Amino acid sequence: MEGGSHGIVASRPGPLVPGLVVHKYGGTSVGDLERIRKVATRLQRAVQHGRKVAVTVSAMGHTTDRLVATARELHARPDRRELDMLMATGEQVSIALLSLALQDQGVRARSLTGAQAGFLTDGAFGSARILQVDPAPLVRTLEQVDVAVIAGFQGSDANGELTTLGRGGSDTTAVAVAAALGVAECQIFTDTDGVYTTDPHLIPSAAKLERIDYDEMLELAALGAKVLHPRSVWYARRYGVRIHVRSSFSFHDGTIVSALPRAQEAAMKTDRPVTGVAIDTEHARIDVVGVPDVPGVAARIFSALGAANVNVDMIIQGVPGNSRQQMSFTVPRDLAAEAVDVVRPVLTEIGGGDVRADEAIAKLSIVGVAIGSTPGLAGRLFDAVAGVGANIEMITTSEVRISVVIAKRFAEQALAAVHEAFGLGRNGPT
Amino acid sequence: MEGGSHGIVASRPGPLVPGLVVHKYGGTSVGDLERIRKVATRLQRAVQHGRKVAVTVSAMGHTTDRLVATARELHARPDRRELDMLMATGEQVSIALLSLALQDQGVRARSLTGAQAGFLTDGAFGSARILQVDPAPLVRTLEQVDVAVIAGFQGSDANGELTTLGRGGSDTTAVAVAAALGVAECQIFTDTDGVYTTDPHLIPSAAKLERIDYDEMLELAALGAKVLHPRSVWYARRYGVRIHVRSSFSFHDGTIVSALPRAQEAAMKTDRPVTGVAIDTEHARIDVVGVPDVPGVAARIFSALGAANVNVDMIIQGVPGNSRQQMSFTVPRDLAAEAVDVVRPVLTEIGGGDVRADEAIAKLSIVGVAIGSTPGLAGRLFDAVAGVGANIEMITTSEVRISVVIAKRFAEQALAAVHEAFGLGRNGPT
Repeated sequence: MEGGSHGIVASRPGPLVPGLVVHKYGGTSVGDLERIRKVATRLQRAVQHGRKVAVTVSAMGHTTDRLVATARELHARPDRRELDMLMATGEQVSIALLSLALQDQGVRARSLTGAQAGFLTDGAFGSARILQVDPAPLVRTLEQVDVAVIAGFQGSDANGELTTLGRGGSDTTAVAVAAALGVAECQIFTDTDGVYTTDPHLIPSAAKLERIDYDEMLELAALGAKVLHPRSVWYARRYGVRIHVRSSFSFHDGTIVSALPRAQEAAMKTDRPVTGVAIDTEHARIDVVGVPDVPGVAARIFSALGAANVNVDMIIQGVPGNSRQQMSFTVPRDLAAEAVDVVRPVLTEIGGGDVRADEAIAKLSIVGVAIGSTPGLAGRLFDAVAGVGANIEMITTSEVRISVVIAKRFAEQALAAVHEAFGLGRNGPT
Repeated sequence: MEGGSHGIVASRPGPLVPGLVVHKYGGTSVGDLERIRKVATRLQRAVQHGRKVAVTVSAMGHTTDRLVATARELHARPDRRELDMLMATGEQVSIALLSLALQDQGVRARSLTGAQAGFLTDGAFGSARILQVDPAPLVRTLEQVDVAVIAGFQGSDANGELTTLGRGGSDTTAVAVAAALGVAECQIFTDTDGVYTTDPHLIPSAAKLERIDYDEMLELAALGAKVLHPRSVWYARRYGVRIHVRSSFSFHDGTIVSALPRAQEAAMKTDRPVTGVAIDTEHARIDVVGVPDVPGVAARIFSALGAANVNVDMIIQGVPGNSRQQMSFTVPRDLAAEAVDVVRPVLTEIGGGDVRADEAIAKLSIVGVAIGSTPGLAGRLFDAVAGVGANIEMITTSEVRISVVIAKRFAEQALAAVHEAFGLGRNGPT
């Protein structure tokens, strides 16, 4: 057991509602009325087995994208407060429809917006953080009905303003519901049947993982494994909620994301130090060259990028000693042009240098809890990458990850080679 | 002046926000992004003239109908609470989009849901009544921005449940905003340019009225003149808010709905005792025949109809004295079959009789504040109707109205004849 909830919610020994399970269904799972009916049937089955359910749902299909696109037709840079007002309607439609589908199947159900479900957030529109979840409204609802249907992705701040939690927000909502109600596990239903050693669309031999550690999942999620958003994993780890990622189209077990205290030992013993391989082709590399080698240059460049809300991922800097310095960093590809525009005037101010973007890059990463304590992994990774002819442009490492940047045209070949080299496929050692 | 607001809001001598005007735009006026931009331009113009605006908007186009239809696909009799949860999203989308359009035109604007705008209602989902409008949130908003964009048709009850106000609810919202903020006039923008002597689509010579009394407007609205909902007129009269009904596609003056203290005198003096003629083809006549003439029969029939939520409009009963009695009444046409089903078992219990529905009827009404005090009007009405060969099946009268039921096939001819007989056309006496 992960020890119950604490922090944003009062620490409690067990569930506040007997027999409660916590589910979450994403946009694909409630993409049309037929799928909403299927979700209702699955929830009905849980109720028939004597359970109560707190279920979080996302907006139907591509509703959120559609709403944002509409806002952009009216305003090139839509105000985040009004965007949240707009986007929050997507989940509100889903909860009402799922509640009606449940009632049609004879299940006592009631919908709650994020605010009604007790989600108090800060006022950062578009990426609000949950400050507190008051369990009382959900407990009261679940005394009266069998299924509480909660709008994911949203809450309200202390002034009653509607807020949204940003990308992956509904997963975070579901984890927070489990934490607030003292439920050990949060079941996240999605369109894949779990977490894989790598993207099975790219590498058909990719194997489904039975269990994965929070830290590994955090790295994989941050690297673009779209099955869970890093923030929800971070919440789950912080509040000790086990996540069960599984398919909304089957009843098979998926992947358990939890704390694996002996995972490191096991990984070393079985020579499976790598849990997964991720490929990310959504970033661009920015090269800054010919910059005067004076103190404070990097600070000025990265302060300017921060002020412009350009997130920087990997950073490398040339070996010092020359009078002219160079550095490279990666940014989300759709911010590459902006990053160049932000850096250029800084270079003029500090007396020279040039900046350019390379959008044709890929970041390949191996992830595993034992990576930091297993010698020789970097070498195996570099060998495999070199074996397909790719030049390694950047490298970063952490306790649980090693990442390399290569030219995008080698991405898939390198991914296959690395996956193979670490024996991750279904035909590999187990 | 109508004396400011009182009752649901504290009585105040004048507007709480200097230079404030109150607007309302219906679903057609915000039917697509282009129209939303046009509404924004009109509001921008008001702001450029130094005004602040509290604007209420409906859901775009047929959004509400579409949402209800979707709910019905999931549940034959959708729960009213969940329907309100669903329908409330329609206005929420409109307010966010209009705010973005305003901001795009450089106007400082902010959206508010019904709950955020201070609308406290009772808990009657689907037809909630406004209990109180707290002016504080709107006053605060209008200190910070120039246009407060308010979701019509909705509020929340004391438990924080989302509620909707029922048909015509956005008009009521706008009137309540004017009352709460102490503004004398509420401008309701719609797809017609005012209130006419009768439906101009049926009678091309129908004339636009410059002014109309609340009582006349209430009768016309209740009789199916769709330009305003009776409830909003009732609120306006109760709280002394003048309504200006006008076109959202032009800048011409429309029709002022207000108290006209000397309207009766004027009407009698100018021989224009009739302000408008309405035709209603949305009702059916139910005939109950051969019923034992014993006390309490009518009470039992109408109690049963009330219990089944069947609204009864006109009622006539045969002259007493026979051992068998008969009565007729009218109900909304889509409830005719239900009315027959409700009445039949009552007849069996009380010992006989039969019930049948006639759906091919029309109710033609003349409306005017001086009708009750002007002799001879009923005769002129009956003459005009008889002149087109229609038989009068039922008659009801009030101080401001005389209605007759005729066969539906005579409806348009009779309407034209009556409109002409009372000199209401643009070519008639003025």
